[in-house]
Amino acid sequence: MLNLFASHRLPLLRLARRSLSMASIESVSEQIATQTALFNQLRLQNAEPALIDEAKKKLGELKKSLALSKSSGGNAEGSGAKEAAKKRERLLLKTAKGTRDYGPSEMFCRESIERIVKECFTTFGGSCLDTPVFERKDILTGKYGEDAKLIFDLMDQGGEQLALRYDHTVPLARYLAMAGATNPQSKIWQVGKVYRRDNPVVSKGRMREFSQADFDICGTWDPMIPDGEIISLICTILAKLDVGEFTVKLNHRKILDGIFEVCGVPQDKIRAISSAVDKLDKLPWAEVKKEMTAEKGLDETVADKIGEYVKYKGREDLLEQLKVDETLMANESAKQGITDMGLLFTYLRAYGVLDKISFDLSLARGLDYYTGVIYEAVVEASAPPGFAASATATSTSTPAAPASDAAKKKSKKPKTDNADNDEEEIDESQVGVGSIAAGGRYDNLVGMFTAAAAADGKKVAGLPCIGISFGLDRIFALVWPKWVVKGGRCKETMVYVMAAGDGLLEERIGLVRELREVGIKTDFLAKKKPKLNAQFAAGEQDEVPFAIILGADELKSGNVRVKEQKWEIVGDKKVKIQAGEGDNGTLVRRDELVEWIKGTPTYKEWLAQN
Amino acid sequence: MLNLFASHRLPLLRLARRSLSMASIESVSEQIATQTALFNQLRLQNAEPALIDEAKKKLGELKKSLALSKSSGGNAEGSGAKEAAKKRERLLLKTAKGTRDYGPSEMFCRESIERIVKECFTTFGGSCLDTPVFERKDILTGKYGEDAKLIFDLMDQGGEQLALRYDHTVPLARYLAMAGATNPQSKIWQVGKVYRRDNPVVSKGRMREFSQADFDICGTWDPMIPDGEIISLICTILAKLDVGEFTVKLNHRKILDGIFEVCGVPQDKIRAISSAVDKLDKLPWAEVKKEMTAEKGLDETVADKIGEYVKYKGREDLLEQLKVDETLMANESAKQGITDMGLLFTYLRAYGVLDKISFDLSLARGLDYYTGVIYEAVVEASAPPGFAASATATSTSTPAAPASDAAKKKSKKPKTDNADNDEEEIDESQVGVGSIAAGGRYDNLVGMFTAAAAADGKKVAGLPCIGISFGLDRIFALVWPKWVVKGGRCKETMVYVMAAGDGLLEERIGLVRELREVGIKTDFLAKKKPKLNAQFAAGEQDEVPFAIILGADELKSGNVRVKEQKWEIVGDKKVKIQAGEGDNGTLVRRDELVEWIKGTPTYKEWLAQN
Repeated sequence: MLNLFASHRLPLLRLARRSLSMASIESVSEQIATQTALFNQLRLQNAEPALIDEAKKKLGELKKSLALSKSSGGNAEGSGAKEAAKKRERLLLKTAKGTRDYGPSEMFCRESIERIVKECFTTFGGSCLDTPVFERKDILTGKYGEDAKLIFDLMDQGGEQLALRYDHTVPLARYLAMAGATNPQSKIWQVGKVYRRDNPVVSKGRMREFSQADFDICGTWDPMIPDGEIISLICTILAKLDVGEFTVKLNHRKILDGIFEVCGVPQDKIRAISSAVDKLDKLPWAEVKKEMTAEKGLDETVADKIGEYVKYKGREDLLEQLKVDETLMANESAKQGITDMGLLFTYLRAYGVLDKISFDLSLARGLDYYTGVIYEAVVEASAPPGFAASATATSTSTPAAPASDAAKKKSKKPKTDNADNDEEEIDESQVGVGSIAAGGRYDNLVGMFTAAAAADGKKVAGLPCIGISFGLDRIFALVWPKWVVKGGRCKETMVYVMAAGDGLLEERIGLVRELREVGIKTDFLAKKKPKLNAQFAAGEQDEVPFAIILGADELKSGNVRVKEQKWEIVGDKKVKIQAGEGDNGTLVRRDELVEWIKGTPTYKEWLAQN
Repeated sequence: MLNLFASHRLPLLRLARRSLSMASIESVSEQIATQTALFNQLRLQNAEPALIDEAKKKLGELKKSLALSKSSGGNAEGSGAKEAAKKRERLLLKTAKGTRDYGPSEMFCRESIERIVKECFTTFGGSCLDTPVFERKDILTGKYGEDAKLIFDLMDQGGEQLALRYDHTVPLARYLAMAGATNPQSKIWQVGKVYRRDNPVVSKGRMREFSQADFDICGTWDPMIPDGEIISLICTILAKLDVGEFTVKLNHRKILDGIFEVCGVPQDKIRAISSAVDKLDKLPWAEVKKEMTAEKGLDETVADKIGEYVKYKGREDLLEQLKVDETLMANESAKQGITDMGLLFTYLRAYGVLDKISFDLSLARGLDYYTGVIYEAVVEASAPPGFAASATATSTSTPAAPASDAAKKKSKKPKTDNADNDEEEIDESQVGVGSIAAGGRYDNLVGMFTAAAAADGKKVAGLPCIGISFGLDRIFALVWPKWVVKGGRCKETMVYVMAAGDGLLEERIGLVRELREVGIKTDFLAKKKPKLNAQFAAGEQDEVPFAIILGADELKSGNVRVKEQKWEIVGDKKVKIQAGEGDNGTLVRRDELVEWIKGTPTYKEWLAQN
């Protein structure tokens, strides 16, 4: 793959400011003492492993920082140390780990993706919500299971304990709980950034800061109608984006729970076993089974029974197959889920999206709060390379995924010496883009907030919800290479105003102002007396379709000269189509210019596209 | 003023989870000991006052938390403590201090503001940049002078020291420095949230999390042309937004520095005196003078000389006045600034914006990095109530601002008992909205980054820049009350599909799907067999202009019934205009429906507005 993402980056300078004075060394030593005490205390108290790990990591950091400062700042000896001291003063000019800038060309593509997504959101009746980027920490606590360790905390600078939002779902539920049951809006969308301290894979759009576009339907409606709306929305949006063939994997938590129950999974192990099943898109069954049995203590015969079920994929045929499974239908939870799915398939037929669906019993989704239908949209690049072939295939009774060599090897790069990269590096060639949209029904989350905030014993009404999150960075990672090949522009400027001869700066400004006032996107070169060549070059860099040239003589007779410019792709480059010899453009009356431009096919075409 | 902002909030529950176990009490005591040591050490070392304050505040927090836990958790006695323990378990259901949700109606208004701003940005030739919400802390260090204490730090969870961005300017400069001098884009815009730990005044749009829309012109161009472009942009955008009459205050750092020099301000006091002058829009001259003399040790005669200059406001007349001031013209810096301003006025005349300008010698701007022209857009609500009259007035030789009683009283509400509000409360009635857009020229910031990251002694090229930030929350605070009065919608839904009689759910879904496919925003009630009344009520809540009613008989004959719906404002409420008696709408052929809708004046009008 082309290294499309690094084009605007400089080679990174690897040494940050790390000089510590003697006073700081004392302070660090003190901190190490406190931190050691804290770490020992946590271990003695049998605190959560995540907490202990944090404390340990922090302790390691402090010790490393002390060692660094002692070896260089504290004991300066000779020219080597002097050299080191010099280097330490250099600023590390980079963005934070797992984050990146999006420059003008990339943003033009991203903006077009967002526009399509938002347009579909409003076409489906959604209205917009915006919540803060950070929340009070206790709002996020207890919502993300094992992944809670990925939450970015803010420093307590006196006041509240805050953390960056991890997704849009929990802030939405908090908002709905605050708004009470009286909120009349049932369809709400949000677009914005969310944060996870995970290992980033920048080329696949797996970032620590990433954008999600969410659409949720809240409220008590008739069964499976909102569920059908959401799946229709997923298909509508992905068909409009240039992501290629996609499949919406579909499952139901109640069916899954029913399967676990009839296979004999103890109640207290159901969520843990569900987490293991969730890994089937990245790991072969043999490894998932090992996690179930060796790690999570499940009986091997129970695991094998689960293995039989989770290999099934299909559509209504699979549903029919489950309906005649008497063991399963005797389970209350499974039966309810199967009834739901039957109704959903009726609606999906009416929405005309059945061909995009894969009813997939191996889909489990990690988050705890789902209570009904769950789904996940994938494309071929979603799976790691070894799994690519099966990512978009849908056929009943296909084994879940082949145990490929590529997937088995959890290849790691050798750990680098860099103090800033404390987590392990990832081999990007072995990672897929992951699902590009995912979600499910969560009927209890809003109620959890309302109950937690209510006076004890007070009855609270819940608010059933179902939603979908689109991963905009992953979608961008898929769309961007195609966008580049198509030679997408990075500006919308329509007109470049130039002057032949003596600059005519105030005249240029006057015309620019006039065109901008009627909404024609216009620019000019910010030079007093620029050469005509320089002005053409600047206009061509922006691929501006109309060059307008002012000349003293033409202006006197009330005219300006207009040259239309077109581009074509030659090889992998965009090239201006040269005008025929002697083509001096068109003479247009100055006072008819706006009308003339708005009448051209080029302008009308642009208008129709926007 | 109407309390428009609190409509979706519940009464806040004031008691958070604060129970601490005995083990925690010990741990807190230990932390207090460490913090006390740190605090004393900082004082002994004469560390920065901001650092000492932070440490002191943190210490207070810890002590408070210890006292709380001892009095309730540690020494439980009787039913009072039991009651308290119960209450402590309640979740505090609110957003973080100084942040808020924007619900659907508000977001519809905000989105319309953003659309106008972005449309102007691209009309002026801008292309978009997006940088991460947080930066490595050392990128932000040393850029914001005294206000650095307002930066939100992230907790160090092992890895990098990070902080939330404080503005868009510094991340842009960091991006430009990383991109090197080769970046071809000279006009860059950014829209996004920035963060300051300041005292919030929610009703005036002064938040801890707030949105800024920035536009910057980077690169070496001929003098004052980009400066003119930026001021033209400010006027264009503010004229399109419903903010009322506005004034762009304009000054030049070089003139200001020249004035300080000729008045006799020592070089090392110039920035501090400049900061004092910057407060003239909030404080009367007498108080600013006191700050200069009593606090900052300036000679009283020097202060009086400054007082003579900074009261001047005007346009080209003021420029002429300065040009004949021989003392000032003998100063190199002032002379350069005055020449710049002369050129700028020529261009502002060509842009047709002279009537919006106030050349105001009291404008200083807080940030250190400005090097040339500075500006600030204000409306009447910008100034605190006592200053309102003078906010948009522009006349030469008017004293800066009357020393009103209201402005003199720095009235405080009594400090509440609430542990979460550690900073002082502000009397919102005594605070203005502040400037709604501000910026200036900063020719050295990018070079500072390049130099800090370069090998020692290596020569680096700078990159002159000029930019403007629009405060979208303050603009929203001005626009929103008018938006409400006009009865703005919160959705764009055009069609509501209903069924008379037996539900016809799949038929409704089929039509909804068809309309959405051609881009007509359509919704329906997610019920299997809803009553017709319920469907009309739902459509009316969204103010949908077309109600389409499916009936079994009509469908058989290939028809549907369409009812157009219109609204009017009666008093302060939006009311549906009742159709005449016997109006059963229009029978339209099912297969001509799309064409029919797209042909209506209502649809065409909507299309033209979007």
